[in-house]
Amino acid sequence: MDMLWNGWGDPAKAAPLPDSVTGLLRDLLGVKPRSTPALALDDLDLPAPTAAPAALAALAEAVGGTGHVRTDAESRVRHTRGKSTPDLLRIRAGDVSDVPQAVVLPATHDEVLAVLRACAEHALAAVPFGGGTSVVGGLAPERGAFVALDLRRMDGLLDLDPVSRTAVLQPGLRAPEAEALLAEQGFTLGHFPQSFEWASIGGFAAARSSGQASAGYGRFDEMVLGLTLATPRGTVETGRAPRSAAGPDLRQLILGSEGAFGVITAVTVRVRPLPETKVYEGWRFASFEAGAAALRVLAQDGPRPTVLRLSDETETLIGLASPDKIGAGLDRSDAGCLAVTGYEGTPEETAYRRERAAAVLTAHGGTPLGTEPGERWAHGRFSAPYLRDALLDVGAFAETLETAAFWSRIPELYAAVRSALTDTLTAAGTPPLVMCHISHVYENGASLYFTVVSAQGEDPVAHWTPAKHAANEAILAAGGTISHHHGVGTDHRDWYVRETGELAVEALRAVKRRLDPDGLLNPGVLLPTD
Amino acid sequence: MDMLWNGWGDPAKAAPLPDSVTGLLRDLLGVKPRSTPALALDDLDLPAPTAAPAALAALAEAVGGTGHVRTDAESRVRHTRGKSTPDLLRIRAGDVSDVPQAVVLPATHDEVLAVLRACAEHALAAVPFGGGTSVVGGLAPERGAFVALDLRRMDGLLDLDPVSRTAVLQPGLRAPEAEALLAEQGFTLGHFPQSFEWASIGGFAAARSSGQASAGYGRFDEMVLGLTLATPRGTVETGRAPRSAAGPDLRQLILGSEGAFGVITAVTVRVRPLPETKVYEGWRFASFEAGAAALRVLAQDGPRPTVLRLSDETETLIGLASPDKIGAGLDRSDAGCLAVTGYEGTPEETAYRRERAAAVLTAHGGTPLGTEPGERWAHGRFSAPYLRDALLDVGAFAETLETAAFWSRIPELYAAVRSALTDTLTAAGTPPLVMCHISHVYENGASLYFTVVSAQGEDPVAHWTPAKHAANEAILAAGGTISHHHGVGTDHRDWYVRETGELAVEALRAVKRRLDPDGLLNPGVLLPTD
Repeated sequence: MDMLWNGWGDPAKAAPLPDSVTGLLRDLLGVKPRSTPALALDDLDLPAPTAAPAALAALAEAVGGTGHVRTDAESRVRHTRGKSTPDLLRIRAGDVSDVPQAVVLPATHDEVLAVLRACAEHALAAVPFGGGTSVVGGLAPERGAFVALDLRRMDGLLDLDPVSRTAVLQPGLRAPEAEALLAEQGFTLGHFPQSFEWASIGGFAAARSSGQASAGYGRFDEMVLGLTLATPRGTVETGRAPRSAAGPDLRQLILGSEGAFGVITAVTVRVRPLPETKVYEGWRFASFEAGAAALRVLAQDGPRPTVLRLSDETETLIGLASPDKIGAGLDRSDAGCLAVTGYEGTPEETAYRRERAAAVLTAHGGTPLGTEPGERWAHGRFSAPYLRDALLDVGAFAETLETAAFWSRIPELYAAVRSALTDTLTAAGTPPLVMCHISHVYENGASLYFTVVSAQGEDPVAHWTPAKHAANEAILAAGGTISHHHGVGTDHRDWYVRETGELAVEALRAVKRRLDPDGLLNPGVLLPTD
Repeated sequence: MDMLWNGWGDPAKAAPLPDSVTGLLRDLLGVKPRSTPALALDDLDLPAPTAAPAALAALAEAVGGTGHVRTDAESRVRHTRGKSTPDLLRIRAGDVSDVPQAVVLPATHDEVLAVLRACAEHALAAVPFGGGTSVVGGLAPERGAFVALDLRRMDGLLDLDPVSRTAVLQPGLRAPEAEALLAEQGFTLGHFPQSFEWASIGGFAAARSSGQASAGYGRFDEMVLGLTLATPRGTVETGRAPRSAAGPDLRQLILGSEGAFGVITAVTVRVRPLPETKVYEGWRFASFEAGAAALRVLAQDGPRPTVLRLSDETETLIGLASPDKIGAGLDRSDAGCLAVTGYEGTPEETAYRRERAAAVLTAHGGTPLGTEPGERWAHGRFSAPYLRDALLDVGAFAETLETAAFWSRIPELYAAVRSALTDTLTAAGTPPLVMCHISHVYENGASLYFTVVSAQGEDPVAHWTPAKHAANEAILAAGGTISHHHGVGTDHRDWYVRETGELAVEALRAVKRRLDPDGLLNPGVLLPTD
């Protein structure tokens, strides 16, 4: 099944907004219904491909036949950009300027190498495409004609070593299928980002994804033990041991490279036994500050829950954690902040952690709310992107952004980003609702994930851009990183360069030039073009 | 205090071998006393420095005066090579061919930058020097005149953030002093490699050190949250958050770069509260295989001890873990394999882990030996290098090497390296004693650390080289990494290049060329010169 071309996920799961939400949007944010009717896929006016027939023939030869090179309008539209709110708004408005020339579907590592050779010969850029879920402009290269290198045919579990607890996965494997294949042998990755239903293994690695159970299972980049990279200059293979002192860790150079250095064609990951027990529960804290302090104690001194998250006052009040109950808490001004803790593992070990963590949370001002809020969160954990579609449909604007920093900087970072978003959108005449949660904790710091909802304004993309840029500036100024788990893409690139520094960026560009001398891989994604 | 110039550590801690060991060496290995008398430092015939007076003047200007540029014989000898057995044998034989032109002692990051500029202007290579404990030829560049860039004046604790639990340490800070400064504020790094008494923070980072408590505190590269690097092209600063999705992890590109990309001038590390309780105990397993299986269960399913190690049958029999008792176990052919487990933390949490781990170890065939073997190990944990000096003094050869792999490859790797060492040295007429332990465990694999003792042969360095190369070949063939925690240096470089692959090495050389266009930093260390 393909994802909705102009929205998120499975069309069958789309749900209209409850009346309570529509009322809230109108009364609180001044959201007005959109007057422009929705475009159908057939209405889009696609530019004809400019790639020469010889180029298409070379691509077909690389992938074993014309059946694996698609130039039909639907395929091209489905590989246009990713799933950020500006991406959806642009395609809904009929803007298909970032459409690929063709969609190429290699089946093997060697076919990927052959596709890259064909691209080099015919001056085509190549954009690796997994689940297509980028929210940072990672699928729209900066210049020139390009092909989407769709990895969906490379969707196998190549090896599972139950002694070492490692698995070799192909990049086009989507997360649910990866979990299903591993579950057959009693294992799990434990990687459940909000994009879970659609995102791919290769994309997780390329963009340093982090899942909702990262407190227990770690980030995706922490799960990766080995990578195979197909580049225009040949193959890089990494990972002979879990850890090594043999030079820089090349895995960590490929992770986060977002297709700019090569195409990830295999990922060796650590796997863990399927948990026998899963339990999620809710806690209430008087304030975001008090809740954050409690999360910090668990992150630093343990015991560490598998899932650990905390919504701020606004997100708690709105009830974003459970879309079917949005607005239900609005009459409770003493709502405080909702935290969700989850425990997965063996019954005994889970019980120990849960009991000890409960003591810590209670000692730090938490009130237990039982399992109901936790189960509600778990039930709705992948539904926020569907909610966004419904919000866009009724004329609201909704987008998210995220960052991370060391613990001592979190209060200032939180305040600075909220202010930047609120001030910019208020000045533009569309005061927003800004919500935030902590969903990834470390011994030394945490992430902050913001959700913004407002009216769309006349030109919703142009309306959002200054607010997004103000948030980026606030993140840099307050000592945060420009992305904790969405990545850089083209949207964050200029701030990424400032965060990283010119000299380090030069070093990364030297790597790119060595592996991709013609600059055909994802031009302008992650690193500036020349 | 300076380290012994021709051996290890504090001369006052040197101890002669017990008679039992001398007898063992003679009877078992045919070790004969050395006939050549030991050279004194004054006996060494140092080549006069060839660096022009203008070069020395430029260096002096870079570091604020001639007092911080040393050209005396003793300073130069003390910065000649590191502390591998071949290094010691060479200097004991009067071979000072790798002596630096001068020792330069910068006090600040900016002075390091100035030293690099002076080196570039005067065509001098620069070798960063911390504790001088490299055992892989990391301090002897491959070509040309060089200065030792000794970082001992940069030995401060620059910042401690008790909320984020981070500390900023200067690179020349030695581990005991770092621990003392952190302990004043209630914190510890928890990094205790065998080189602890002498090694420096910068060296730990540059060479990806791993300490004896890595099961609990992690490897040094896992403790590092930020790095400042002084390069000939300027400064690289990394680490705004514990984790980020903003591109490749540049910390992991600098960690393990062994001075080839730049000089590490500051390291931000995670710190932990000083443990209230420390307890170490011994366990016996019937075989190395059975013990390794038990360690694997703890590493994968927990609970994780803070220290977790296992000696093979030979190492257990010889009793290397406690040098004062070497040979005492030789009459017990049922000795099996000794494991040491250690627990550090709060009393309650330590007790929980200890009790649960004991149940796991017992279930997997372990016999508890109480705390005495654990305390003995802890008491002697930094003494092996002193023992090596004593062995070299009496005409024995002693050296160590190490590797790591995924769990399922450990048995083959163990057998392959043992055979390579035993076969090569036996064929050369000096059958060795080969001992091994696992001292670092991960969910997905472990390290293997080998100790080799034999007679020296006529030319002991030439005698060892084929055995070392055979071990390197065995490691590559059996799927291990060329080093788990000693690093690459010049000794492992050619195998490192094969392990890493030409294309990845090209990418790293592109980074080096960008940061160090004149190739003045550690030429030939880690990466081949042009």
